[in-house]
Amino acid sequence: MATLVSPVSCFRSSLAAAAVRFPIARASFRCSSSTEMETEHYKFGAYKIDQREVFYSTHLSYALVNLRPLLPGHILLFNFFFFIPRKRREVKRFVDLTPEETSDLWISAQKVGKQLEKYHRASSLTFAIQDGPQAGQTVPHVHIHIVPRKGGDFENNDEIYDAIDEKEKELKNTLDLDKERKDRSMEEMAQEADEYRKLFS
Amino acid sequence: MATLVSPVSCFRSSLAAAAVRFPIARASFRCSSSTEMETEHYKFGAYKIDQREVFYSTHLSYALVNLRPLLPGHILLFNFFFFIPRKRREVKRFVDLTPEETSDLWISAQKVGKQLEKYHRASSLTFAIQDGPQAGQTVPHVHIHIVPRKGGDFENNDEIYDAIDEKEKELKNTLDLDKERKDRSMEEMAQEADEYRKLFS
Repeated sequence: MATLVSPVSCFRSSLAAAAVRFPIARASFRCSSSTEMETEHYKFGAYKIDQREVFYSTHLSYALVNLRPLLPGHILLFNFFFFIPRKRREVKRFVDLTPEETSDLWISAQKVGKQLEKYHRASSLTFAIQDGPQAGQTVPHVHIHIVPRKGGDFENNDEIYDAIDEKEKELKNTLDLDKERKDRSMEEMAQEADEYRKLFS
Repeated sequence: MATLVSPVSCFRSSLAAAAVRFPIARASFRCSSSTEMETEHYKFGAYKIDQREVFYSTHLSYALVNLRPLLPGHILLFNFFFFIPRKRREVKRFVDLTPEETSDLWISAQKVGKQLEKYHRASSLTFAIQDGPQAGQTVPHVHIHIVPRKGGDFENNDEIYDAIDEKEKELKNTLDLDKERKDRSMEEMAQEADEYRKLFS
């Protein structure tokens, strides 16, 4: 019987060696000589996420820097779902998470929020889930917006939410159209993720 | 040695008998002949919460109907912290919650959100925490806004957040000034809480 190799451990090993540039997140790893496992690791709904954007992960959750952050440190935290052929599991809505996934996601949110608030010398945090299309969700995959906040960062606090909504729409458009990333380069995002990764090592 | 009686169990027993009207939440219960325990049960920061507003509770979290809901089913979910003289614990920020409290709060949010979405024939949910004053928090006690959402409930989804912010400010003002509740009577709120309580029995 083939030895089962955790795709997460597999990914983590690969992450350490990920100094080289590669444009895709979908990867076929040979994690051991006895196991061949095709696994799509980091995805945002049906979209591919470059592993270099990811700065924090557990076996159930992962956080990535934002394509177009509305404030410094605005990141996204996802339920870590991966695909094994014929065992794909979609987690569109918050209620679809298991209790273990829910706990891990929000305990991760605490940890990530605490470090990013400190790192950015902020004093508050905004947490929001747009859970379902009528709540502004554009990609059907549960995710938390976490935004470090400072006094005066928005003239009115209301504006932060307008901006989250706008960013969610922009993100979807960008992913859909596979446009050139004008706002942020992958290098810039990878550098930011590198900085954040140090906070959790 | 005196038998320890859970203030939560104590409250639950009292809830069943809470058909009478009373204006305060701070209560001194004699839960057993051998135990006298003064406990302030449901509080929103330093403010008193009438028990009739509460429709869901675990030993760590509780949900209450809103003084001025911005949409039907807009409720608040709190970390359940109670006061024992000299052991008062404030939970101002999300990071202050223990892992057990965090898990319970969000698993409760799933359950409450699911039932209220169904009850109000909605199709999505907004979850938000304004964590700290710079994020719009007006009362320093962790709480989640949960809002059932329907297509077209707001012309632009952005508006929901403006409204949450506005409601948070209104709530604080109302609590501060101890004004007459013009928008919602306690009877109306208690009736709504009665309806919701049935969803979890």
